[in-house]
Amino acid sequence: MNLQEMLATIHDFVERELIPLESRFLHEGFRAILPELQAKRREVQEMGLWAPHLPREYGGLGLSLPEFARISEELGRTPLGHYVFNCQAPDIGNMELLLLHGTDEQKERWLWPLIRGEIRSCFAMTEPNCPGSNPVWLETLATRDGDEYVINGHKWFASSADGAAFAIVMAITNPDEENPYRRASQIIVPTDTPGFTLVRNIPVMGEAGEDYMSHGEIRLENVRVPVQNRLGPEGEGFRLAQERLGPGRIHHCMRWIGICERAFDLMCRRAVQRRISHDATLADKQTVQEWIAESRAEIDAARMLVLDAAEQVEAHGSHGARVAISTIKFYVAGVLQRVLDRAIQVHGALGMTDDTPLAFWYRHERAARIYDGPDEVHKRVVARAILKHYRPPQKSS
Amino acid sequence: MNLQEMLATIHDFVERELIPLESRFLHEGFRAILPELQAKRREVQEMGLWAPHLPREYGGLGLSLPEFARISEELGRTPLGHYVFNCQAPDIGNMELLLLHGTDEQKERWLWPLIRGEIRSCFAMTEPNCPGSNPVWLETLATRDGDEYVINGHKWFASSADGAAFAIVMAITNPDEENPYRRASQIIVPTDTPGFTLVRNIPVMGEAGEDYMSHGEIRLENVRVPVQNRLGPEGEGFRLAQERLGPGRIHHCMRWIGICERAFDLMCRRAVQRRISHDATLADKQTVQEWIAESRAEIDAARMLVLDAAEQVEAHGSHGARVAISTIKFYVAGVLQRVLDRAIQVHGALGMTDDTPLAFWYRHERAARIYDGPDEVHKRVVARAILKHYRPPQKSS
Amino acid sequence: MNLQEMLATIHDFVERELIPLESRFLHEGFRAILPELQAKRREVQEMGLWAPHLPREYGGLGLSLPEFARISEELGRTPLGHYVFNCQAPDIGNMELLLLHGTDEQKERWLWPLIRGEIRSCFAMTEPNCPGSNPVWLETLATRDGDEYVINGHKWFASSADGAAFAIVMAITNPDEENPYRRASQIIVPTDTPGFTLVRNIPVMGEAGEDYMSHGEIRLENVRVPVQNRLGPEGEGFRLAQERLGPGRIHHCMRWIGICERAFDLMCRRAVQRRISHDATLADKQTVQEWIAESRAEIDAARMLVLDAAEQVEAHGSHGARVAISTIKFYVAGVLQRVLDRAIQVHGALGMTDDTPLAFWYRHERAARIYDGPDEVHKRVVARAILKHYRPPQKSS
Amino acid sequence: MNLQEMLATIHDFVERELIPLESRFLHEGFRAILPELQAKRREVQEMGLWAPHLPREYGGLGLSLPEFARISEELGRTPLGHYVFNCQAPDIGNMELLLLHGTDEQKERWLWPLIRGEIRSCFAMTEPNCPGSNPVWLETLATRDGDEYVINGHKWFASSADGAAFAIVMAITNPDEENPYRRASQIIVPTDTPGFTLVRNIPVMGEAGEDYMSHGEIRLENVRVPVQNRLGPEGEGFRLAQERLGPGRIHHCMRWIGICERAFDLMCRRAVQRRISHDATLADKQTVQEWIAESRAEIDAARMLVLDAAEQVEAHGSHGARVAISTIKFYVAGVLQRVLDRAIQVHGALGMTDDTPLAFWYRHERAARIYDGPDEVHKRVVARAILKHYRPPQKSS
Repeated sequence: MNLQEMLATIHDFVERELIPLESRFLHEGFRAILPELQAKRREVQEMGLWAPHLPREYGGLGLSLPEFARISEELGRTPLGHYVFNCQAPDIGNMELLLLHGTDEQKERWLWPLIRGEIRSCFAMTEPNCPGSNPVWLETLATRDGDEYVINGHKWFASSADGAAFAIVMAITNPDEENPYRRASQIIVPTDTPGFTLVRNIPVMGEAGEDYMSHGEIRLENVRVPVQNRLGPEGEGFRLAQERLGPGRIHHCMRWIGICERAFDLMCRRAVQRRISHDATLADKQTVQEWIAESRAEIDAARMLVLDAAEQVEAHGSHGARVAISTIKFYVAGVLQRVLDRAIQVHGALGMTDDTPLAFWYRHERAARIYDGPDEVHKRVVARAILKHYRPPQKSS
Repeated sequence: MNLQEMLATIHDFVERELIPLESRFLHEGFRAILPELQAKRREVQEMGLWAPHLPREYGGLGLSLPEFARISEELGRTPLGHYVFNCQAPDIGNMELLLLHGTDEQKERWLWPLIRGEIRSCFAMTEPNCPGSNPVWLETLATRDGDEYVINGHKWFASSADGAAFAIVMAITNPDEENPYRRASQIIVPTDTPGFTLVRNIPVMGEAGEDYMSHGEIRLENVRVPVQNRLGPEGEGFRLAQERLGPGRIHHCMRWIGICERAFDLMCRRAVQRRISHDATLADKQTVQEWIAESRAEIDAARMLVLDAAEQVEAHGSHGARVAISTIKFYVAGVLQRVLDRAIQVHGALGMTDDTPLAFWYRHERAARIYDGPDEVHKRVVARAILKHYRPPQKSS
Repeated sequence: MNLQEMLATIHDFVERELIPLESRFLHEGFRAILPELQAKRREVQEMGLWAPHLPREYGGLGLSLPEFARISEELGRTPLGHYVFNCQAPDIGNMELLLLHGTDEQKERWLWPLIRGEIRSCFAMTEPNCPGSNPVWLETLATRDGDEYVINGHKWFASSADGAAFAIVMAITNPDEENPYRRASQIIVPTDTPGFTLVRNIPVMGEAGEDYMSHGEIRLENVRVPVQNRLGPEGEGFRLAQERLGPGRIHHCMRWIGICERAFDLMCRRAVQRRISHDATLADKQTVQEWIAESRAEIDAARMLVLDAAEQVEAHGSHGARVAISTIKFYVAGVLQRVLDRAIQVHGALGMTDDTPLAFWYRHERAARIYDGPDEVHKRVVARAILKHYRPPQKSS
Repeated sequence: MNLQEMLATIHDFVERELIPLESRFLHEGFRAILPELQAKRREVQEMGLWAPHLPREYGGLGLSLPEFARISEELGRTPLGHYVFNCQAPDIGNMELLLLHGTDEQKERWLWPLIRGEIRSCFAMTEPNCPGSNPVWLETLATRDGDEYVINGHKWFASSADGAAFAIVMAITNPDEENPYRRASQIIVPTDTPGFTLVRNIPVMGEAGEDYMSHGEIRLENVRVPVQNRLGPEGEGFRLAQERLGPGRIHHCMRWIGICERAFDLMCRRAVQRRISHDATLADKQTVQEWIAESRAEIDAARMLVLDAAEQVEAHGSHGARVAISTIKFYVAGVLQRVLDRAIQVHGALGMTDDTPLAFWYRHERAARIYDGPDEVHKRVVARAILKHYRPPQKSS
């Protein structure tokens, strides 16, 4: 199968197999449809499209980032897509970390079960008392005690912690290091380790969620793990996180494009179907037409920007492409919010209900402008990188 | 107590008695806090501020519409305010209808229990198959059979139907009447009447809600009620609805202003508290400052427009003030959405959680731009009223 | 005549006598129509509406600020209005300064000729090398030499310098004063003083303009004036300027509301007249209707905010009302730009021409968001005043 | 020279040779610098970059449309670029028309002198009484009289008519043809033909302009030209115009991208240079940073959309690419307006003057959202093309 065929196959699969499950997901919750999702996962494995982001030697499709990006868009058309293909965040990022930085033993114990879809994982970085806009500000401490780290801290928005087999925890291991970017390490913590508590699934926009679809608040109290659970060298936590964020943001942005396309499709369908008088539908209204045209332009523009950023990551790495990545992070999040808003308005009261996935995305994807760095931070990154070229050399601020 | 004193008293009461209940409301639901709310209702009665919208002879405060509007703003600062003061939609509108158009018998049976807070009610107008932008398009039929109406139809977004003692149902009684505005009547239907079914509380933005905080889908199948249950003359349903919408929109708009003020307050508090580095808080960021300044300007402007519209309703009635009413309907709904969006962004991840009421309003008040006529319809009303003065007399479109 | 009668009289006068002069003004320039304008000025004097901003004892109408604001709106409907009524900036501000702070001799020599309309004046504050957002940053120096000041400096955007009899020049007189707000004084400089050069009328948006309608660049080289030409005490230049800016911004904002109303009127007229097919005009297009509705809402909201700010200035002085003044400065400037933009779009190619005043305002009133403090500065003023109430007392930034 | 080398060469030439001429152009007008421009034109010819849009056999560079688009962007960075390279509108479009549809005789007489830069031309389509949004609505008539057409009509916004050797006039030749798209023809009219009058250069945003930089109003009164002056078959005027508009809009859009890049460059330069206090420049302000980041994202997105549309025109012709063309027409015009607006705001008062080209573009490129079809028309084209795929087959509107 070449890429075009894969995309067509996945598009059909999403339409035929996954979208029909959405209604139960939205009304009964994620856990209620887990058996069906597991069956779909097996179908995907049989189709040979499982874990498409992975290299061939790890059972994946061996795609470039721009190629996988296109697949991510197709999967993004339903909230269930990435999970069923086993390329859902945060597992996809954790797989990448383990693949690049894991020891053989770590891979055996954590990576392969993830790849096979037997376990899930989470990533515990954000802390309620520390602003996400300042990533080096962490309070979680991992103190060396012999061959172990003793970890204490408070994390939240650890997505999918509920049911995860392990967490990758970002913690300060070198508090005295001068360079604040060299103080933290990433440490694998099995969730059944004593002292590791999932306090709650945080109610987000009215929903605590469950299982994969949840955001955990975690307490770590004298949690002891062997030093071998550290990913990569000590003090390299931020570097690893930064590396991971590049492709991660491409994945998110393409997922958002997929959401946009689905919302666009729903908006157009609704427009031609909804009669507003005996001889007219919403599609005849100029305002609806303008929303459709503006959405089309914005989605197309957004996709081109993201695919271009993916090419840049492929060519120059996450660091080399960081301006492009920050640009798409805020730009696509904005397009996403506007397109969803218009699609809901076209649906009227129906748009407020859970009879379409629009309301689900409207409330949960509001976070797109917040997580992984709020818009404001990414705009600053872009502007400062540009202004550096304009500034007289002596001045830096 | 003069108005200023009332406002100050209510402001304090909201701060001291109601806001502390919000967290349980947001995490456990409306029903969980009903006992506390009933206790607060009794306190309000004892304070002499119960049902402030009603004339003195009906136990209210005898306020003008602009005066009550100011009170509605104060109550709007929490999702619990109007309910505790017994001036919550849709009961407030139903009380007004009964007060103006009810027979003595209807008042005795339905109005006084509402006033005393012993029962609740709902209003069943919107139909899933008929666009809200075309109010005369209804499929629910009330056919005369002797001294009874036999009602068949399908309604949804009947707010607070769950637990309501009766519904006021808009139904076509005169299908052959030429003037489409003269075909419908409003009929009181006790919810325990055979054939009246609350199909479900519609999941809206992920929440079916319960009791007062819900939106019902209703089936009416051969529902029989005596002709005496009709409110006002036959065929006058729309006229009554129109009349009701004028003050109703003032109430909504002032409630939204209250929400804006609360969101503004939360945004400012968060801005000064949230450290983003050792020597700065969010309040030091220019972007946050601009959101605060723009929000302040927009909220102040919105309040003035609403109070002016209230004066116009007071002076010229709902029909005479309809342009002002349509203007505030779309304008204030827009301000509300922008202010809530900014407040959430300032809160970051916290803004996504239910640890503040912002996320509740963000998802549920998205409907502000939809119900009671979407923005698009109100803009058209305003423009056409204005353009009429510019058009040569012969042309009308 | 009460206020309503004055407003109606002025409205008619603008329609009947001034708007017909606009076309020649726009195509031939200000000087070409000066004779007609002088004739209109005499008519205004005869009608008893001359210099409406002044107290009765100075020949004006003795109006409150909110009352004059309403008149300023009516005059703002044409670029020629304020000039013909002798209440045009910058003369209106200079009259106020002289009235409040002038000595009897200064009043005799400068104020009364201004009031009689025999001379014009300008105000020279802005400097090309100093940002307007930092008002205390000035390079123009007035050094005391015996009974004279010797002034050296470079000013620009001194509106109406071309043909002015005198300039009020803001200059540093006390460079060593610690408080930067106490370093400058305002000094009256006759334009025929040796060393005072009007370098050019600055080409602004393609037009250097002429006479009253111009913005001058000025060089001051060893300009000598007697110390008695100073307005108010030494070092009080900023305080006087601040005082002057309060009412000045009310005047500007109400003039902008007048422009908005005229643009709105032109937009509506055009909409009903422009056929786009055999059975439709632009007024039938939903997008045009939405622009009309949104403009109506925004203009009404803006006017209420400005009149409220005028009441605050009247009650609490410029300093007491400074938050309200900063709010309207950026808010109304934004409304102005949007309304003009929509009106031009409705006019199509005609909107680009000088056959309506829209293009004149579109280009010149772009400055509304810049002069007297850019939007950004005013938003900061508003936000910081608000946030002060939220901040713990020790912190100030 | 490959494309990259051409772009670099042109970029340098624009920077070194053309931008220094801008100030005189802006202050003294186009005619004042014509001698210099002619000299620059000769340099361009010597560099072998003349008329880059033409096929090699006509003396051009034989570029594809996407290749020329990149050059058009570079030239767009100054208002003088396209003229000096002899690929300025409307001559570029007229050359294309003559090249594709001209007879040998027409090419000899009109095309080759245009190619050599000896003459200029104009295109007379728009009429003051007919809306541009309805292109088939024309009142200019060309009546056949023997071997001649007798043309009567009124045109305006015929850009560069002042000094043009000929006009291509769109006129109704077949008024009785049922299909309104088959009624008009394009006819070459030498401007010295009796009855052809350039009434005026229309004052546009305060400037009548002159020579190439002007927009003419034209009267045609019994203008007689031989039938051989018709371009293409009778009744094919619209088809030819449509064909011409495809590449024409690509050219415009890429010129706008060039303007955006220049404005962006000026904005960044200004930001780092303008001190606002002793230790900060405008580049340190978050709001300025956000304008820079948002502008960067929007310009990059816009360019990708335009280059993609150019590929589509190349692959599928103007008609096949019409949705992409309409999309970029409104989208890029919007980006252009926003970027210019931000750049002016960053320049403050300087941005209002003609000391930068920003104010020139701000006022004249407001037309970008109007000419060649206003935003509204293009959005409708896009929406209707999309909705066609959603609509049940029987319905068309």
